[in-house]
Amino acid sequence: MNETVKARTMETNEKTLIRTLKGETLSVPPIWLMRQAGRYLPEYRETRKQAGNFLELCYTPELAIEVTLQPIRRYDLDASIMFCDILVIPDALGQDVAFREGEGPVLEPIQNVQGLSVLNPDGVLDHLAPVFETIKGLRRELPADKTLIGFAGSPWTVAIYMVEGRGGTDGGKARSWAYKEPDTFSQLMDVLVAATTEYLIMQVDSGAEVLQLFDSWSGVLSEDQFRKWSIDPTRRIVDGVRAVHPDVPIIGFPRGGGLMAAEFIRETGVNGISMDANVPLEWARDTLQPLATLQGNLDNQLLVAGGAEMDMTVRRIVDTLGKGPFIFNLGHGIVPNTPPEHVARVVELVRGQS
Amino acid sequence: MNETVKARTMETNEKTLIRTLKGETLSVPPIWLMRQAGRYLPEYRETRKQAGNFLELCYTPELAIEVTLQPIRRYDLDASIMFCDILVIPDALGQDVAFREGEGPVLEPIQNVQGLSVLNPDGVLDHLAPVFETIKGLRRELPADKTLIGFAGSPWTVAIYMVEGRGGTDGGKARSWAYKEPDTFSQLMDVLVAATTEYLIMQVDSGAEVLQLFDSWSGVLSEDQFRKWSIDPTRRIVDGVRAVHPDVPIIGFPRGGGLMAAEFIRETGVNGISMDANVPLEWARDTLQPLATLQGNLDNQLLVAGGAEMDMTVRRIVDTLGKGPFIFNLGHGIVPNTPPEHVARVVELVRGQS
Repeated sequence: MNETVKARTMETNEKTLIRTLKGETLSVPPIWLMRQAGRYLPEYRETRKQAGNFLELCYTPELAIEVTLQPIRRYDLDASIMFCDILVIPDALGQDVAFREGEGPVLEPIQNVQGLSVLNPDGVLDHLAPVFETIKGLRRELPADKTLIGFAGSPWTVAIYMVEGRGGTDGGKARSWAYKEPDTFSQLMDVLVAATTEYLIMQVDSGAEVLQLFDSWSGVLSEDQFRKWSIDPTRRIVDGVRAVHPDVPIIGFPRGGGLMAAEFIRETGVNGISMDANVPLEWARDTLQPLATLQGNLDNQLLVAGGAEMDMTVRRIVDTLGKGPFIFNLGHGIVPNTPPEHVARVVELVRGQS
Repeated sequence: MNETVKARTMETNEKTLIRTLKGETLSVPPIWLMRQAGRYLPEYRETRKQAGNFLELCYTPELAIEVTLQPIRRYDLDASIMFCDILVIPDALGQDVAFREGEGPVLEPIQNVQGLSVLNPDGVLDHLAPVFETIKGLRRELPADKTLIGFAGSPWTVAIYMVEGRGGTDGGKARSWAYKEPDTFSQLMDVLVAATTEYLIMQVDSGAEVLQLFDSWSGVLSEDQFRKWSIDPTRRIVDGVRAVHPDVPIIGFPRGGGLMAAEFIRETGVNGISMDANVPLEWARDTLQPLATLQGNLDNQLLVAGGAEMDMTVRRIVDTLGKGPFIFNLGHGIVPNTPPEHVARVVELVRGQS
């Protein structure tokens, strides 16, 4: 860190992640990792046993705080993302959501306008009260230099789970509904935009300092539909949150959005853009970095593999993107069979300590 | 069609699809649709009953020819793609491949170098002899103005099925293997490159006039790995086929490859590039069309929905891309619940007959 930047840090007293998201280029980029609290850590697996099911883990502040803090104890990360899941929104709306071991989430699918009647937007914030307790507890317990990130799923991605009943599909049923009956599909999206906006506002009220919106399945959308169901709902949420919290930095993650990323940034007004591993670095540097802070994009399977190729790739990502506003991260969440020591190695490399 | 082009057609006697793939801009773009022979047609479902399982349908020339011809009888399409499946290659190599109704293909996964011992490359062409019979029969039965397209899966996509045991994943096991042991993963890829090259050469020997390589899961690859496992094996196959058949036009389909498409075209030397629905039209026109003939990219769910939005989108695709070398197609294969009359409507629209 050079003297000018150091001086400014002391002056502003702002945390690295927030400074980067406000457009500052740091000599050492901040680092956090999607799903940094998770099954790859033995202490997570221990804590996990104390909750009956996965949603109970999300809704028990004591346990959610504990697993959120676990990676912070192990690694010199710049930020902590509250432990939760994007499917708490459909759960809070009254849809039946179950997490089955080794199978991922399964929802009772909603496939038409009649199905929307099961959704009750009124009780969402009450239902999610434990999440806000988790955030408050984390702000008390997190070291002062760590940024607390709140998050939600983007409406399109949450809608895919709600309509298909699961992830990992090509979103055919959701895309079909959106084309055949855009008006009734909009009703579902409006419910999600409203619920997600109030959820994120309350996260900031409770102490979240940065927000990330995960649009994990935006890559299945055609150009037009991406504008309609990924960009537009994101813009409405960003506007809604900023109406109450004008300064909170927001990161968008239109996974698989490829070429639409530049338009996504311009139209939604997000401060940062998270990139999956297939986004080419030089294109991102030249095209996206002038528009927003970049975040990404180490392949999560390269983190599993480790070794010289991982070292080289981490260095290349930092060398290529680190000359502008940049946050080191993965292209997608950490997978369960990741060796914990590989995470330590990546943190060292990004810090320039090896 | 203007007089010059018409004169040239009569002179060269070449079919529209081949002319377009050689770089000619036609006033009416040729059209064919991925999976145009399939479950959305009642006559396909009837013929399907005559085969015990799906692979038997692929390996019975009489039935494969019949289902290939069915869409040609119904619609004024420019090309016919032989009815087959990309998984005949692992099947021919000796891996256990099963197609279960409503579940998609299931393979006995190969997850390390030891697993490669089940593969026997020697018998591939003998095993695939029925496919070549299908092609020969189709050349006899197809109307003279229809182009016959042969195809194969790209090695990366076929490897994903072979390693994961199924599709629809993030390719984590294949990506992991490729990172941890690139040398042994290369052995699998080399087997696939060799088998696919000889398979495609024999398809052309048998009468295929154009080839398409489907890399349906290339979108899960990081930038580096895309170069290594999508571009490089494709280039080797293109070179191998061209060493024997220098003039056969080849279409690549790096689905989800996004920004890597331009490099894919330049490095592999394909004549055409098939684009999924999320590729933005104006970018494709400006960036890719100077390099190759474009093919695509109507959303297969918009073909299901039909109506004014489908009409408008078809017209916009043709208006935007039709001023250069272009083949109208979908972004991905036709899905089973597609109303057959919507296909007729799209053909009319592309032909400018409505």
